[in-house]
Amino acid sequence: MALRTGDHSQAATNGLKEKVLTLDTMNPCVRKVEYAVRGPIVLRALELEQELRQGVKKPFTEVIRANIGDAQAMGQTPITFLRQVLALCVHPDLLNSPDFPDDAKRRAERILQACGGHSLGAYSISSGTQLIREDVARYIERRDGGIPADPNNIFLSTGASDAIVTLLKLLVAGEGRTRTGVLIPIPQYPLYSAALAELNAVQVDYYLDEERAWALDVAELRRALLQARDHCRPRALCIINPGNPTGQVQTRECIEAVIRFAFEEGLFLLADEVYQDNVYAEGSQFHSFKKVLTEMGPPYTARQELASFHSVSKGYMGECGFRGGYVEVVNMDAAVQQQMQKLRSVRLCPPTPGQVLLDVVVSPPAPSDPSFAQFQAERRAVLAELAAKAKLTEQVFNEAPGIRCNPVQGAMYSFPRVQLPPRAVQRAQELGLAPDMFFCLRLLEETGICVVPGSGFGQREGTYHFRMTILPPMEKLRPLLETLSQFHAKFTREYS
Amino acid sequence: MALRTGDHSQAATNGLKEKVLTLDTMNPCVRKVEYAVRGPIVLRALELEQELRQGVKKPFTEVIRANIGDAQAMGQTPITFLRQVLALCVHPDLLNSPDFPDDAKRRAERILQACGGHSLGAYSISSGTQLIREDVARYIERRDGGIPADPNNIFLSTGASDAIVTLLKLLVAGEGRTRTGVLIPIPQYPLYSAALAELNAVQVDYYLDEERAWALDVAELRRALLQARDHCRPRALCIINPGNPTGQVQTRECIEAVIRFAFEEGLFLLADEVYQDNVYAEGSQFHSFKKVLTEMGPPYTARQELASFHSVSKGYMGECGFRGGYVEVVNMDAAVQQQMQKLRSVRLCPPTPGQVLLDVVVSPPAPSDPSFAQFQAERRAVLAELAAKAKLTEQVFNEAPGIRCNPVQGAMYSFPRVQLPPRAVQRAQELGLAPDMFFCLRLLEETGICVVPGSGFGQREGTYHFRMTILPPMEKLRPLLETLSQFHAKFTREYS
Repeated sequence: MALRTGDHSQAATNGLKEKVLTLDTMNPCVRKVEYAVRGPIVLRALELEQELRQGVKKPFTEVIRANIGDAQAMGQTPITFLRQVLALCVHPDLLNSPDFPDDAKRRAERILQACGGHSLGAYSISSGTQLIREDVARYIERRDGGIPADPNNIFLSTGASDAIVTLLKLLVAGEGRTRTGVLIPIPQYPLYSAALAELNAVQVDYYLDEERAWALDVAELRRALLQARDHCRPRALCIINPGNPTGQVQTRECIEAVIRFAFEEGLFLLADEVYQDNVYAEGSQFHSFKKVLTEMGPPYTARQELASFHSVSKGYMGECGFRGGYVEVVNMDAAVQQQMQKLRSVRLCPPTPGQVLLDVVVSPPAPSDPSFAQFQAERRAVLAELAAKAKLTEQVFNEAPGIRCNPVQGAMYSFPRVQLPPRAVQRAQELGLAPDMFFCLRLLEETGICVVPGSGFGQREGTYHFRMTILPPMEKLRPLLETLSQFHAKFTREYS
Repeated sequence: MALRTGDHSQAATNGLKEKVLTLDTMNPCVRKVEYAVRGPIVLRALELEQELRQGVKKPFTEVIRANIGDAQAMGQTPITFLRQVLALCVHPDLLNSPDFPDDAKRRAERILQACGGHSLGAYSISSGTQLIREDVARYIERRDGGIPADPNNIFLSTGASDAIVTLLKLLVAGEGRTRTGVLIPIPQYPLYSAALAELNAVQVDYYLDEERAWALDVAELRRALLQARDHCRPRALCIINPGNPTGQVQTRECIEAVIRFAFEEGLFLLADEVYQDNVYAEGSQFHSFKKVLTEMGPPYTARQELASFHSVSKGYMGECGFRGGYVEVVNMDAAVQQQMQKLRSVRLCPPTPGQVLLDVVVSPPAPSDPSFAQFQAERRAVLAELAAKAKLTEQVFNEAPGIRCNPVQGAMYSFPRVQLPPRAVQRAQELGLAPDMFFCLRLLEETGICVVPGSGFGQREGTYHFRMTILPPMEKLRPLLETLSQFHAKFTREYS
């Protein structure tokens, strides 16, 4: 029984004690946190699933959760070699089994050798197993054409989210007009807005340009920065590339311009690069901020502060549940880096199974290894299918009147713009809902398709979007896209 | 190159840009964080290990890390059944292998059935897999003699630390004299002080009574509370039972008195019960706060707010690296519980392998299961050896002049008091070190034994302690204890 402050005297009269922790007394920053990807629409989807299980009649037979980038939940099969190595590490008796290839065994033995007590059950050091950080460093060097990476600048993490929040925590300071401001793209992945709310930092929005396939424009960065300087102290700039939820892949020229801007304006760069393996569009290519920064030469190379995040949850592996990831910091002040190390140590260590999977991801089988052919085939198959789904999504949506979808150049989502009739907007307002939330809720109730309204990611005033993953299996994706387009047409007629 | 604020004009003159993130500009709360268990002494231990590997001559041949409760790093073997079930979940091809017992296979199939896409690679819901939370609820019911537990009040977590920090986060509010105060025991496990520093809450110390085997005294709780009310708003009371670093196991009477106190004073109870399986002393028994609270009847049963934490890192399993754990909340305001759910969702989900291990821990093989005998034998062997080590530790330390060790009734640590000669205290002060840090550093340099100074946990002014785990294997533990005692005698002579 939750009594609110207003009921205090009543509670006293009844001899009841008010709870210590209520909405009125709890951390006000936590109250402000919002996270649309698992917000009210997903809670409703869970309820609907339960109703279906209980035999309640619905206009659909299953709920399709296209709200979150969770490949294996959508039926994607794990990459065999990753799971073989992990199973061997978890249960080393299997090292004697004839059912595992030699390279998986060698890999597992090498990792176990680097673990305390040769077991995944021991804590690793707080920044992650030394050997695995060395493997990550070599991966980054290969990815970036030989530019050196230092294992001491690499911190393994509990998924990328954990590392992103750590960096934001370090950056937050000041009060009132000196509070830390952090520039984030709009639309954004709502981890950023949620973490900034929790940390009581100032979210500074810069808008991506929907008319130019969600391109990032430095003039817009400058506008956002100058306006923000009136009321806070902007100190960091987040970039998500490839974009979530927008799917754009930034050009090298764009990245160079962003780096020059950050350097001139004194901003710490946070590069969310978790979709670096997810690039589909012809002519698009992933360029890491680290590589571009280094190739730009002085003064950027040795001075621009950068943190780059990666994860085992996305890419071709989609191992979300294991919570593996890392951050590489570049040009971070040495004393601050020690503080980061200390802060990380309080949480002891990132989960060891996620560390193992990360190790395999950053050092996949070599051509001479017995598992090479199968690994490559599995990896290519996943990425080829994702590319086909990205194309199909764009195509089907763009055939629908009132829906416009930018090319999904990378990542795992489409973020189409939908026209909603004025009467639907009005009806939503009467219900106290964002218009695209109203649309998405109706979509869910009538078709079982669960997507996230654009208002959860941010969008230009008066425009409406939703985020939908491209992950459903091919045979389901086309009917799904068509159902969604048809529903939009019906919804539009209904409110015209 | 880190320029400090004072060098600003110099930097400008040289055309150098100051870093964005420096000790002066970073989050001041993070700077205040300390975490002794992985602090400077452990960094030095790592260096010494490296020097040994490089062939540097030392007065010892290996570093013994008795600083952290990491059983498997000390050679404890994983419980077979736990790893079998997890290996099957990680690599379901093994379900066809004749090398795994049927009950492990049934278990793995049941868990996989409850996972998205039947894979550990999918995210679970944010509070943890429903099935596993149901199993946890049944475990709590058995543990507490049938008192009901609701899976909806259980949140799985990334080790217990993660859940503890979540609860503290919810509780933090106010500014100046209305800032949230949290009562913590002294000595404490430094996660508490670290989290409170990071969250800018007020740490309110209550002292455990060393003369009465580290008992918790309500008069001392009251003293601490009344003094704290002058400068903050105390809202929560943390108890660690069995105690870390102190090893005491609280009596039922003590727990009842604490609950009455918390109820009368309007304090949210945080019960750190991660060592609930680690009770060794005759006559000692673990009583959960939930059980005692419920059996006390009204008004406590239905009103006293409580969170109880558990982990897969301790007990007989010691699976630290997997980062599994849970919190059960009792009598939490429903709206606050929704806020907690929302806050947890931002981090997506606890790592699935830790969830699997937790599931086996809370529902071990039944007597009719093929794995029962082996499981019980392994579990009993670990606990019996821990009990013997607890006894041996107390005994050897208490034979040494100038060292006094309370009985290790439970948990995994001894926290003996050491007399340090005044000249050693003076020498430490000259070096800018806490006297027990000076002692522990000298101990490490001369013997390779790594223990944590009492100052990292808190202790009464003028007393000195260290925390040492009881985890080294039996054949190493006795010589270790003797070496440590002899070093203390030598140290005492040196400074007399």
